[in-house]
Amino acid sequence: MPYRVFGDIHSGNCYKVRLLLVLLGIDHHWEPVDILAGETGSDEFLAMNPNGMIPVLMLDDGAVLTESNAILNFLATGTPWLPDEPLARARVLQWQFFEQYSHEPYIATARFINRYLGLPDDRREEYLAKQRGGHRALRVMEQVLDGQSFFVGEQPTIADISLYAYTHVADEGGFDLAAYPAVRRWLSRVGQWPHHATMARMAATMP
Amino acid sequence: MPYRVFGDIHSGNCYKVRLLLVLLGIDHHWEPVDILAGETGSDEFLAMNPNGMIPVLMLDDGAVLTESNAILNFLATGTPWLPDEPLARARVLQWQFFEQYSHEPYIATARFINRYLGLPDDRREEYLAKQRGGHRALRVMEQVLDGQSFFVGEQPTIADISLYAYTHVADEGGFDLAAYPAVRRWLSRVGQWPHHATMARMAATMP
Repeated sequence: MPYRVFGDIHSGNCYKVRLLLVLLGIDHHWEPVDILAGETGSDEFLAMNPNGMIPVLMLDDGAVLTESNAILNFLATGTPWLPDEPLARARVLQWQFFEQYSHEPYIATARFINRYLGLPDDRREEYLAKQRGGHRALRVMEQVLDGQSFFVGEQPTIADISLYAYTHVADEGGFDLAAYPAVRRWLSRVGQWPHHATMARMAATMP
Repeated sequence: MPYRVFGDIHSGNCYKVRLLLVLLGIDHHWEPVDILAGETGSDEFLAMNPNGMIPVLMLDDGAVLTESNAILNFLATGTPWLPDEPLARARVLQWQFFEQYSHEPYIATARFINRYLGLPDDRREEYLAKQRGGHRALRVMEQVLDGQSFFVGEQPTIADISLYAYTHVADEGGFDLAAYPAVRRWLSRVGQWPHHATMARMAATMP
């Protein structure tokens, strides 16, 4: 039985997992979960992930793995997307932890407030604070990508997939990437990978 | 030349790295960095880590690795603290990403506001919100540790080091662990590791 992925393709954290599965040509079942309808808070879902978050990967024996970047590391083990040399492998993680701590909480949250909640007045102050944090992350990315093609050097890794997920839809969070030319060149480099699809394209071809 | 670690031992993220180095008996130089004095914002520091955060690990050839949990993965590679089997290794990461996303931003930030800033009135609302998030993380930990000795089963891994760092000083963030008996048993299990030292003990023996 193939992998099952519980997720919402409009969540960058879920999209990451789908993108890697597609790039690797790994067969899987996508099980849609509606966060806004509270499905991640059901007893059934919490039995699978007590932390109540998507995505969740279920293996053929029923074992469950959570946290998008942990799932990427698992799926990419033994493939060119995850180098085996210890320092390079740790550098992939460095950028994935950067993504979850310094990027996602700002860019993904601003996008959620703006796109899914319609930027209500009582969240405007939070939204503006998220802008500052998001631009701080983008400046770090710009500085690194100014000198190299991908986050861990000249070869793409799952660190690029992790950071691409919310960066390529950052405009939906109110982020203008005009001031980040190296980031825009990197986005277009990622967009040229064979079998690559943006979130919008992927969503349009899913049931 | 041994590793150099740039950090502040009172930061759980830095303490994690020091604890693993001590457990592994790895010689290193500790280079104190004062966040409150703005040292992570200096040009010299930003040249090392554009994201302006500690800890930073510097290797003997001058190469630099950032993000506490990426550093732990690098140092633990090939040791019993990081299983080699792909699913177990991914599960270590699952808990480390949980730590950085669902635990540290609440428990470490509440501790910072309380212990380092003296709980000023204009941050009280934020402090209370951090309490809710921190207890949510503690409930997840309690549920998992109720059925097993460590986060990835019966053997300790760097996932335990990551989660121990801020949990063993959670009282400084206003968290009472009385309602979490399995978490308290796990803290005491970790405290019995050979060469283990708490943050307070480590700080007292450092220059």
